[in-house]
Amino acid sequence: MKRKYISVARSKAVELICSNLHYLQTQEIVTLSNALNRVAAKDIKSFNTLPNTMNSRWDCVFFYYDRWLEDKGDTSLWELGKDYIYANTGVAIKGDHDTGVKVENTKIDKDNRLVLLEKNIQKGQNTQPVGEWLKEGEIVVKANTKILPAHLNILATAGVTEVPVYRKPKVGFIATGNELVSAGQNLPVGKNIESNSISIAAKCILWGAEPISLPIVSDNKAQIAAAIHKATAICDIVIIGAGTARGTEDYTLDLMDSLGTVFFHEVDHGPGKRTSFTVVNNTPVIGLVGPPMGEEMTFDFYVLPAILECLHQKIPLKNIKCLLEEDLPEHPKVDFYMPLHIYEAGDICHAVKAESLPGSGAMILCNINAYYFLPRGCGGRKKGEIIEAELSPSIPIAKACE
Amino acid sequence: MKRKYISVARSKAVELICSNLHYLQTQEIVTLSNALNRVAAKDIKSFNTLPNTMNSRWDCVFFYYDRWLEDKGDTSLWELGKDYIYANTGVAIKGDHDTGVKVENTKIDKDNRLVLLEKNIQKGQNTQPVGEWLKEGEIVVKANTKILPAHLNILATAGVTEVPVYRKPKVGFIATGNELVSAGQNLPVGKNIESNSISIAAKCILWGAEPISLPIVSDNKAQIAAAIHKATAICDIVIIGAGTARGTEDYTLDLMDSLGTVFFHEVDHGPGKRTSFTVVNNTPVIGLVGPPMGEEMTFDFYVLPAILECLHQKIPLKNIKCLLEEDLPEHPKVDFYMPLHIYEAGDICHAVKAESLPGSGAMILCNINAYYFLPRGCGGRKKGEIIEAELSPSIPIAKACE
Repeated sequence: MKRKYISVARSKAVELICSNLHYLQTQEIVTLSNALNRVAAKDIKSFNTLPNTMNSRWDCVFFYYDRWLEDKGDTSLWELGKDYIYANTGVAIKGDHDTGVKVENTKIDKDNRLVLLEKNIQKGQNTQPVGEWLKEGEIVVKANTKILPAHLNILATAGVTEVPVYRKPKVGFIATGNELVSAGQNLPVGKNIESNSISIAAKCILWGAEPISLPIVSDNKAQIAAAIHKATAICDIVIIGAGTARGTEDYTLDLMDSLGTVFFHEVDHGPGKRTSFTVVNNTPVIGLVGPPMGEEMTFDFYVLPAILECLHQKIPLKNIKCLLEEDLPEHPKVDFYMPLHIYEAGDICHAVKAESLPGSGAMILCNINAYYFLPRGCGGRKKGEIIEAELSPSIPIAKACE
Repeated sequence: MKRKYISVARSKAVELICSNLHYLQTQEIVTLSNALNRVAAKDIKSFNTLPNTMNSRWDCVFFYYDRWLEDKGDTSLWELGKDYIYANTGVAIKGDHDTGVKVENTKIDKDNRLVLLEKNIQKGQNTQPVGEWLKEGEIVVKANTKILPAHLNILATAGVTEVPVYRKPKVGFIATGNELVSAGQNLPVGKNIESNSISIAAKCILWGAEPISLPIVSDNKAQIAAAIHKATAICDIVIIGAGTARGTEDYTLDLMDSLGTVFFHEVDHGPGKRTSFTVVNNTPVIGLVGPPMGEEMTFDFYVLPAILECLHQKIPLKNIKCLLEEDLPEHPKVDFYMPLHIYEAGDICHAVKAESLPGSGAMILCNINAYYFLPRGCGGRKKGEIIEAELSPSIPIAKACE
């Protein structure tokens, strides 16, 4: 029986994946020093008020404003420690002195007497009132905020030592293929190294998920079925590598139809056309293509939004204007995301096709830092045009073409 | 004796720091799975050639081109396994068949005979020659490259299991101040929590350095001197927090003059004017201001470039055009980097002063995602103008003003 392939556009594919995640947003408590890059599971409030007594805003001399008025600015009789005191930036004013002049606007004369060089003085100036920096009970980090270094600074100040965060979504990757051997093994003729898993694990870590290591599975229906069952039982998101194309040993799509609900068999663009999505045992299973070029791209297009959705984070889609340094032809058969290499030179960004870079395929992969969408029939784009390309979330723009 | 303060511009300060680093670029070997975000200490070459035999580029039927010519495209007598075979994407072609047609462009008729639906066939099509993806001896990661997930993918394919990387520069932070208590402790009246160290440690980790934890030191000359001596003996970069201003207990500048070579006592802008730089025991010592607002900014301005310089990485200075939603007044006394909050709304970015956001000071800190430089005498900028602000490398732009 000829399969009816369900093919969807990229945005529809992302929507289908993100609305079928079934990730349970349980929270866990981590210590402050383990909270970096985690996502707050609820609003976090301050236990402290700061300053908790009136502070000096700068390094200052403090005195009584009323005394200064009374003395008409003549400070020659003032005694240190009684009529005036020193207080440093952010430090409590030890006394009830109410007004400050910055140290650099004062001097001590040859008779050891204070002189104020500032004449236009306002009562209370250069003091920092109680609670100006932080108030007890105030929300310091809102729920769903990714915790950055500056948040750690504030949380420490707020007296927070334990931080409620979402647990990391568990992302498992099943590589399939008789031709695959694990990284680090010798490579027999006709075999290939399973290299996607290490990149996928690294991306999971970078984006806040927990990678779950799973063994390579041969092209064997029963073994793939068993691997999918096991993975869906322990993971929040399962990725299955290759096996969703149309080759003779690509069993996975048939299996998927029997194991769960297939939402789509492919997407309507190249590269990475054979990306699929199925829900098995209430768990999303995303089928990515095998070759690293397609795998890296489709992970960023389809798995990354799923991880971020679990964590209430926004997808880092960013476009950039750049000058096209060569023609971009349309693909004769499919809508196509042309892999680009963008580099800054002078005040603008320039774009070339990644495949135009020197070196073999593998070299090119790490230089793909953007994509340009060429719908079928668009006629392509020409050298010299300014295009708006989509930045890769995984590989930054280089300063110069290398 | 009145001190003569050496004050420098930001760019000069960065140049002085980066040219006086004395970090020894020794390398260390890490396993592939520990290489993420490390920086390659030398060119890394491939041990493998891939494919190592002729591969199929797609899921295809392969046959002999000459036979196809001879039979004038009539494949009705061809036998599977002899005259034609199947091979999947990226998999070795088992046999010496030289030309392929994609599976979706073939069919098997009711008599179980192969039919090729494609007529315009080129010899060798849909094969992937030996070494197209990767060649033994080819450089896969250049020296000074920060290793990203895609690099891990390629390194695994290349048979690389051990990666030479630069050791992480050790960055120590000495907080000084009688008023400081460690995070997690109770906060007596008039005291403050030392909160900068946790943010500094997190930033070091994010940017590839190793944070060295050091105890808080009181405002005592001998103790500060001892702490600096100890830190410079074990760190590549030492940060000293506060103590470089002009208060009565700000001993550090005096000390610095006696301990080493002071390159500058301050920078010519606010906030963070009291940033200093000294070389002690051949080790750079950067003095940052104490209040978190200034500390976060001056770390990004002055310590981050130093860490990246050690690792041969570029400083992520990025400007962004945005619409000013309120006036930006100039500072009456100094050149000023106005802390901004930028948010995306519609197709453009909007900017407000961070201090205009609701909440107390601490709340504002985590919303400073850009700066705008206002030199003295510039007259400020007006609401409605388009300005080019400098993006914070530590806090990303929010999707909407929250």
